[in-house]
Amino acid sequence: MSSSLKKAAGGAPRLFERYVPVDHARVSFDAGFWKSWSETVRDVTIPTQHMRLDEEGFLEVLDFDKPAGPLARPIQPSGLSMQHFFDSDFGKWIEAASYTLKNNPNPDVEAKIDAIVEKLEHGQMADGYLNSWFIRREPEKRWTNLRDLHEMYSMGHLLEGAVAYFQATGKRRFLDVMIRAVDHIIDTFGAEPGKLRGYDAHEEIELALVKLYRVTGDPRHLKLATYFVDERGRMPSYYDEEARRRGEDPADYVYKTYAYSQAHTPVREQTQVVGHAVRAMYLFSAMADLAYENDDPTLKSACDKLFDNLTGRQLYVTGGLGPSASNEGFTREFDLPNETAYAETCAAVALGFWSHRMAQIDLDGKFTDALETVLFNGALSGISRDGEHYFYENVLESHGQNRRWKWHYCPCCPTNIARFITSLGQYFYSAKADEVAVHLYGANTAELDVAGRFLRLKQDTAYPWEGDVRLSVGLSVPASLTFRLRIPGWCRTARISVNGQEIDFSASVERGYAAITREWKDGDEIRLSFDMPVDRLYAHPAVGEDAHRVAFKRGPVVYCVEETDIGTEPQRLRIARDAALEPRFDAGLLGGAVVLEGEALEADAGDWNGTLYRSAPPSLKPKAFKAIPYHLWANRAEGAMQVWLTEK
Amino acid sequence: MSSSLKKAAGGAPRLFERYVPVDHARVSFDAGFWKSWSETVRDVTIPTQHMRLDEEGFLEVLDFDKPAGPLARPIQPSGLSMQHFFDSDFGKWIEAASYTLKNNPNPDVEAKIDAIVEKLEHGQMADGYLNSWFIRREPEKRWTNLRDLHEMYSMGHLLEGAVAYFQATGKRRFLDVMIRAVDHIIDTFGAEPGKLRGYDAHEEIELALVKLYRVTGDPRHLKLATYFVDERGRMPSYYDEEARRRGEDPADYVYKTYAYSQAHTPVREQTQVVGHAVRAMYLFSAMADLAYENDDPTLKSACDKLFDNLTGRQLYVTGGLGPSASNEGFTREFDLPNETAYAETCAAVALGFWSHRMAQIDLDGKFTDALETVLFNGALSGISRDGEHYFYENVLESHGQNRRWKWHYCPCCPTNIARFITSLGQYFYSAKADEVAVHLYGANTAELDVAGRFLRLKQDTAYPWEGDVRLSVGLSVPASLTFRLRIPGWCRTARISVNGQEIDFSASVERGYAAITREWKDGDEIRLSFDMPVDRLYAHPAVGEDAHRVAFKRGPVVYCVEETDIGTEPQRLRIARDAALEPRFDAGLLGGAVVLEGEALEADAGDWNGTLYRSAPPSLKPKAFKAIPYHLWANRAEGAMQVWLTEK
Repeated sequence: MSSSLKKAAGGAPRLFERYVPVDHARVSFDAGFWKSWSETVRDVTIPTQHMRLDEEGFLEVLDFDKPAGPLARPIQPSGLSMQHFFDSDFGKWIEAASYTLKNNPNPDVEAKIDAIVEKLEHGQMADGYLNSWFIRREPEKRWTNLRDLHEMYSMGHLLEGAVAYFQATGKRRFLDVMIRAVDHIIDTFGAEPGKLRGYDAHEEIELALVKLYRVTGDPRHLKLATYFVDERGRMPSYYDEEARRRGEDPADYVYKTYAYSQAHTPVREQTQVVGHAVRAMYLFSAMADLAYENDDPTLKSACDKLFDNLTGRQLYVTGGLGPSASNEGFTREFDLPNETAYAETCAAVALGFWSHRMAQIDLDGKFTDALETVLFNGALSGISRDGEHYFYENVLESHGQNRRWKWHYCPCCPTNIARFITSLGQYFYSAKADEVAVHLYGANTAELDVAGRFLRLKQDTAYPWEGDVRLSVGLSVPASLTFRLRIPGWCRTARISVNGQEIDFSASVERGYAAITREWKDGDEIRLSFDMPVDRLYAHPAVGEDAHRVAFKRGPVVYCVEETDIGTEPQRLRIARDAALEPRFDAGLLGGAVVLEGEALEADAGDWNGTLYRSAPPSLKPKAFKAIPYHLWANRAEGAMQVWLTEK
Repeated sequence: MSSSLKKAAGGAPRLFERYVPVDHARVSFDAGFWKSWSETVRDVTIPTQHMRLDEEGFLEVLDFDKPAGPLARPIQPSGLSMQHFFDSDFGKWIEAASYTLKNNPNPDVEAKIDAIVEKLEHGQMADGYLNSWFIRREPEKRWTNLRDLHEMYSMGHLLEGAVAYFQATGKRRFLDVMIRAVDHIIDTFGAEPGKLRGYDAHEEIELALVKLYRVTGDPRHLKLATYFVDERGRMPSYYDEEARRRGEDPADYVYKTYAYSQAHTPVREQTQVVGHAVRAMYLFSAMADLAYENDDPTLKSACDKLFDNLTGRQLYVTGGLGPSASNEGFTREFDLPNETAYAETCAAVALGFWSHRMAQIDLDGKFTDALETVLFNGALSGISRDGEHYFYENVLESHGQNRRWKWHYCPCCPTNIARFITSLGQYFYSAKADEVAVHLYGANTAELDVAGRFLRLKQDTAYPWEGDVRLSVGLSVPASLTFRLRIPGWCRTARISVNGQEIDFSASVERGYAAITREWKDGDEIRLSFDMPVDRLYAHPAVGEDAHRVAFKRGPVVYCVEETDIGTEPQRLRIARDAALEPRFDAGLLGGAVVLEGEALEADAGDWNGTLYRSAPPSLKPKAFKAIPYHLWANRAEGAMQVWLTEK
């Protein structure tokens, strides 16, 4: 079955650009930065995650024929036996695993997925309803609390898993189970008389439905997604009505405001990013999808305002987002505390999803800059170099208390970073008519269909450690194509040559992408050279936590200082404004990485004599200084870490 | 009944100094700084607190004959109908109110206290047990969970209330109720065979028992306090044993470590202040009391180590303590975040209790410095200038989200700051043989008995706004006495004159107190003059949050900048190291206070054009600057506040 997306691409004129991302399975990381990360996730992360899901009891929830008592091994630390949304976790694991299957068939993984699918099919209710908690524990309460209990969120993740598994293997069984579940939702929810006018407080089903629509071409699937997004935030709130039906006072809602779920006001009227960060990113991803599919400029314009609000006022320099643990999300603008940063891995991954979608309808480098920022920093920091330890919170400063864990009672992040990396290829290239957009740099080999031709692209590069990229063109017959090459937002000096001839591309740069149109033939070679000095970054004065502080970034990679490298807490360092910082490739550092070295000053604690406050500022002494990529922190000895360093 | 303390003072030689604080009722604040605070607390705070306790249902818990259903008005925001430790709240209110009664008899307040006492007496179980929760709801569960349920903590506060009410009015009824309750505890707990070897996880009963002992002279009361302190932290833990008796796994303890309650190791082996801050301060207060009463050098030495650890590594510049909300207490050393500071009002008040007790056994200015710091800063900030709004957390930085509240579902702080202020007189002077120690400065008139003589002391001073104090001596017959006059730790230049004659006192200064011994006669006058420039304070380099920041203190008063005074968030200010700061008395500011004025720089947000990060640091423009005493913040318009200001 070909996707409806491809069929629609040649249709009537559309409001937006409609780039089509290359399929992830057609991009191979056979060398360079992403090679070992991809292999680690495929060979370590995917199998160990299944092992954890199994041993921690997450799969046990699918034993529909057993009494739904406590799990054999209750989830710690809450003593929790089961959560309403456990289905989402193996849904995401199936999705992540599926992305590896096309190029690396794995009967063992397939068997594990099939076993889950069989249990799901067995447990699914006759009318299509599917949620392991409610079916086993309180079927009479299904659909009575969309505000808190995540039924559609869970189904959405199963649906994404089913689509990915179908695309990887051609097996329909899981997809059919989920289509029946979606049919049930269509029968139950909608603006039509007799249906419940509800929508899930944790967004996810919306973007999953667009994925389904792109596979089935069934307009009812797109219509349901559209309904959920349009209905959101309509007043009086469905959640009030629903709470009253449960005999509860809506005023007792624990999060106090539906802004927690971006349901305080219709989505097209939202201008500030609020509430739970992952929910927000999933919603905005769906809004971008629907702008794309429905040619809806009002959704695009809402997304634009929200994106500018996020990146201009609420985004960590690492691409982390959502500073607060209490709502797992946003607080006030410019509130970006470092040590207590929540900055959930899932939220950074989902910002990648949203940014990528935005770039398909509006080829603007600001979107791919955000994608690249999360990719090399705030999302990648969520997984350890060994591929089996994780962060939920991605703080920008620590005194050593933040350690990676093997598993979590709410393990949403591990499978999210896994599916991001196993599907990474799709983020590199998009095509439209006779155009190819190159969004990301990094060694890979890709196959594309453009303007009816088969195009092979190969990037040779040490990116992100170096800014030189050789892009080789493979074509069986010559073709007239436009390459739109992203000039990264962090780059102040770029050079491009074609077949050894430097070209002046500056006039062709439009919103961060340089355009080169010509008749291309097999063996042509584009060389891109992005100057990659160490950047010193300062935060807007309203970010009180970063006052008098500097962050280091080189290319797309944000740096941090770890105690283990300098033998003292980085909080004691003072960096002179003119301090020289030398980048050096350290092959021995966790698989190889560029580190920054130089001279700092250290605030001396030796002359404080037991006092905590005094009238003389600390004295300073020279101190050798080393910074490593932020995404590599907490992979070695325990200790303090700091991204925003104090300036002298 | 005279206190056993006075009787014992002339006994056998003791290890420690044993100063006796002057009774609070013998110190009158008839002018100056504390006059209006005392009057506000007596005339506004005490009556409104009773009103809140009544209207919020706290007193309803004493209706022992009614079924123990939900309260008429459940406590918000938890929907809680009743807590196990509500008795402590009216216990503390009775104590606070009682301190006002001796000099200001008030039949209405007495009637309200008598009404509570009557209900308590009526509800008390035949064996003496007294706790409204357990008696009404689950009497069979009494004494089954000392780790979590605060039974002795609540009884301790009732006991302190009973002692204070007896001392104020001579009425024995409440005291007798509580003596019966203590008899019951003595029958139930102890090291003797057949008794439970338990102790309450929330300390309080220990210091209350010493107060009771000082009234009754009954050695069993002192012995019980001693048992509780000696037993604490003995392994294997009583809390493990008790949890198993309840059928629970001790490993499921929500706070994970008994360090939360200072019960992880015997108290004499503790060297770092850990866990819940109020609990720690109440324990250490009891340890100081028992060192005093039992001549126990091991407890004194433990207190010394803990005091130095607290003040050298864990105390906010305001005297606030316990940075973390999650355990209402301590984390790691030097962890002093400003915006998320918990720094509970109760903890600062209780540090006042402890410091004061330490000074009675060891006349060292470091103890009275700490007392004075909390008094003018981190404790006083817990109550509004109007006397009926409160802070639980006393942050050192805010973006305007911290507002004072009228009442709280856990209203421990309001009554704590109330009892601190209504008994404030006791902290000013102590006597021992022919010595008088003057600990605090501030306009007052006091009556003391020293060396068998009646001594009247009067301080005329605008302290803390000015550093000049005139101390007038009133004596019916001349007396040879030593005055030990505290030279505040913040003071670098002090002058003292007697009857107009400047004296050289430097050789007499011992640990922060200058000694003047002579034959004093009626009308003698000591003048103290403490230079009071504006101090710039810097924090130890290990306090990362305060790097590159400066705090202003003048005399004992810590300053802050409020947005309402400068029209911008103080987080945007940069203070030049040589910026001149002029103190000025502002009679219109909340009853009159010295403010600091000068020129700062403001980080300019005007040229950031929607970017959040950039490679150029913020530009700076001049900005008039004003700071007010920290204890006065959040009494006017909503807005941001900062104690630690960024230096240029």
